Amino acid sequence: HNSKLPHVGTTIFTVMSSLAQKHKALNLSQGFPNFKSDQKLIDLVTNAMNSGFNQYAPMAGHLELRVAITNKLEQLYNTSYHPDSEITVTAGATQAIFTIISAFIKPEDEVLIFRPAYDCYEPAIALNGGKTISVQLEAPHYQVDWSVVSKKFNSKTKMVIINTPQNPSGTVFSREDMLKLEALLKGTDIILLSDEVYEHIIFDDKKHQSACMFPDLKARSFIVASFGKTFHNTGWKLGYCCAPKALMIEFQKVHQFNVFCVNHPMQKALAEYLQDPNHYLELSTFYQRKRDLFLSLIKDSRFKFTPAEGAYFQILDYSKITLENDVDFAKRLTIDHKIASIPLSVFNTDNLDNKVLRFCFAKTDDTLKQAADILNTI
Amino acid sequence: HNSKLPHVGTTIFTVMSSLAQKHKALNLSQGFPNFKSDQKLIDLVTNAMNSGFNQYAPMAGHLELRVAITNKLEQLYNTSYHPDSEITVTAGATQAIFTIISAFIKPEDEVLIFRPAYDCYEPAIALNGGKTISVQLEAPHYQVDWSVVSKKFNSKTKMVIINTPQNPSGTVFSREDMLKLEALLKGTDIILLSDEVYEHIIFDDKKHQSACMFPDLKARSFIVASFGKTFHNTGWKLGYCCAPKALMIEFQKVHQFNVFCVNHPMQKALAEYLQDPNHYLELSTFYQRKRDLFLSLIKDSRFKFTPAEGAYFQILDYSKITLENDVDFAKRLTIDHKIASIPLSVFNTDNLDNKVLRFCFAKTDDTLKQAADILNTI
Ligand SMILES: CSCCC(=O)C(=O)O
Ligand SMILES: CSCCC(=O)C(=O)O
Repeated sequence: HNSKLPHVGTTIFTVMSSLAQKHKALNLSQGFPNFKSDQKLIDLVTNAMNSGFNQYAPMAGHLELRVAITNKLEQLYNTSYHPDSEITVTAGATQAIFTIISAFIKPEDEVLIFRPAYDCYEPAIALNGGKTISVQLEAPHYQVDWSVVSKKFNSKTKMVIINTPQNPSGTVFSREDMLKLEALLKGTDIILLSDEVYEHIIFDDKKHQSACMFPDLKARSFIVASFGKTFHNTGWKLGYCCAPKALMIEFQKVHQFNVFCVNHPMQKALAEYLQDPNHYLELSTFYQRKRDLFLSLIKDSRFKFTPAEGAYFQILDYSKITLENDVDFAKRLTIDHKIASIPLSVFNTDNLDNKVLRFCFAKTDDTLKQAADILNTI
Repeated sequence: HNSKLPHVGTTIFTVMSSLAQKHKALNLSQGFPNFKSDQKLIDLVTNAMNSGFNQYAPMAGHLELRVAITNKLEQLYNTSYHPDSEITVTAGATQAIFTIISAFIKPEDEVLIFRPAYDCYEPAIALNGGKTISVQLEAPHYQVDWSVVSKKFNSKTKMVIINTPQNPSGTVFSREDMLKLEALLKGTDIILLSDEVYEHIIFDDKKHQSACMFPDLKARSFIVASFGKTFHNTGWKLGYCCAPKALMIEFQKVHQFNVFCVNHPMQKALAEYLQDPNHYLELSTFYQRKRDLFLSLIKDSRFKFTPAEGAYFQILDYSKITLENDVDFAKRLTIDHKIASIPLSVFNTDNLDNKVLRFCFAKTDDTLKQAADILNTI
């Protein structure tokens, strides 16, 4: 059978996590916490199962959870979504993204993305016959030149995907970035897919600029969010998206035949857990302390860095150490030095190699210390 | 935005369940048990969460679970699959089906299905630009005339979808059906998608004929299975599919960007629960007793029936009561008589109306008695 995705291999996260496991390396590659999530939340899931929330949830999601989500959006971003028609709970943010792209992208449509880009966008676009148009950003600051972006638009442009805080770069879009994007899109019917899965992890008093805070963006946007990244349980595979009703109707046409609905007892538990805003408001402080710990421990190493502005990834520049390509270096670090990371070139146009690696600092202090001990010897 | 699925509305299961809720009707429409699943299995999930299985599972699924699945297939169907490369755990059977279709169906490809057909196949085919070719089966026996089927094949035929035990009809394919299908497909490279989510629910000493028991079918097949239907927790959204490695590679290219992986603590729990084959071997007896109870209670009603051969749905013919169309009658039963069912015409070619409704008997004996009391008055 001719492959529909001939150029797609195994995702880099699987490759590096497997290599880490094989060589018993410290795994700072794939992004997930290696500490436990709140026992309170686990107990809420147990309660939900014991109370009988074990059959299909409504297709859009458990109603209490959708209401809790709209309340959160109201409090944080001062914007209102209707829980009945503008929120869908998904089997993780990835399923939301795949479903959004599947619902709207047709053959010949163009989708603009910023690189380095998380690796799930392009295959989903390709699978639907669309074309990915890339804007390459460069280490270490990954700033967007919006005049360059504007030249990439044409009549085939159907969607723009942004990701702030950004994975893998750890950068965030400023209010000015968002206003420039809003101005660029004005008068078009381009859809914005705003991947905001790290919305609650943002440092140094920066403020997350959600697309839903900008009325002209909100009207054309899907906002994608993740519970796994917020509540330290990436393996529960729960997230959600919100969008104006007309867009959500098309999303749900596909969602209902992709997964129909998602894990019910865990939705019930999250609905209760979300009632206390501290459960997400404390997250930035929590991760900023980890970032600062990690960076203070490696400040005298031969790796150079600009501190991450958000998300739980730190980019390290290894150009003072070696000029070998980043994939080879990442593998060598894993095999010889027992520390796994993610090479950035896999996310770039033509595998552009800025000699940088991504390290996940969603780890116990002990793991971060062990990691620093290794990095300081390299 | 032009819809990619202009003819798709809300699934009938959501429509009828919502109507049932609004009118406080007994809900025998959407297929789900209204009794609790095994406390032992729930406790295993709690243990898994408390033991820290809360981060991403491997993309193909928790390894112990994949091994448990291959052991089950070996024991039940005397066939071997490789846990490393031929099994993927999915967010329910629906996600497996959607992903299989997305991975293989291209514009102009034809996919043959048997009607009445479960409603998730056709939209997934359409979304990928494929064309659904239907073979209409007729109440009450829904038998396949394989000479008619053979005429539907041509060079564009890419996939055949079968579903045994069948939802909604409750019929099962015999060994002869499977052999005829095998003969028909011989020498082609047509993929078989065998939806076997009710494999463990089969009555009157019939034996489930899995596609993996027929070597020439197995070599071209995805077998799709469901834990929710087997262990009474449709809301956990866990299933799996198996296929020869070459097919599974293409599946996983899409799966990894659709959901990446699925609920980890529940996979861990299912891996342990599957160790005891009685947990699924007792299911046919369990549901046959429910079917027999339900049918004995309504044998003097004005509904006619042929007992279901498998799955947990009973088709009832209402032509002695009224000749109004089945959608109207199903709605009237829900609103006026407080019992919800599923009209079959929504699954048929051109909404063919055989004057039959589908009732789910995965319900407590008490609910089945209440249902019978209502049906006996109609
Ligand atoms: C879905 S596995 C990848 C996890 C992740 O978001 C990352 O490491 O960037
Ligand atoms: C996914 S909701 C429908 C449940 C079901 O399988 C059915 O009722 O047929």
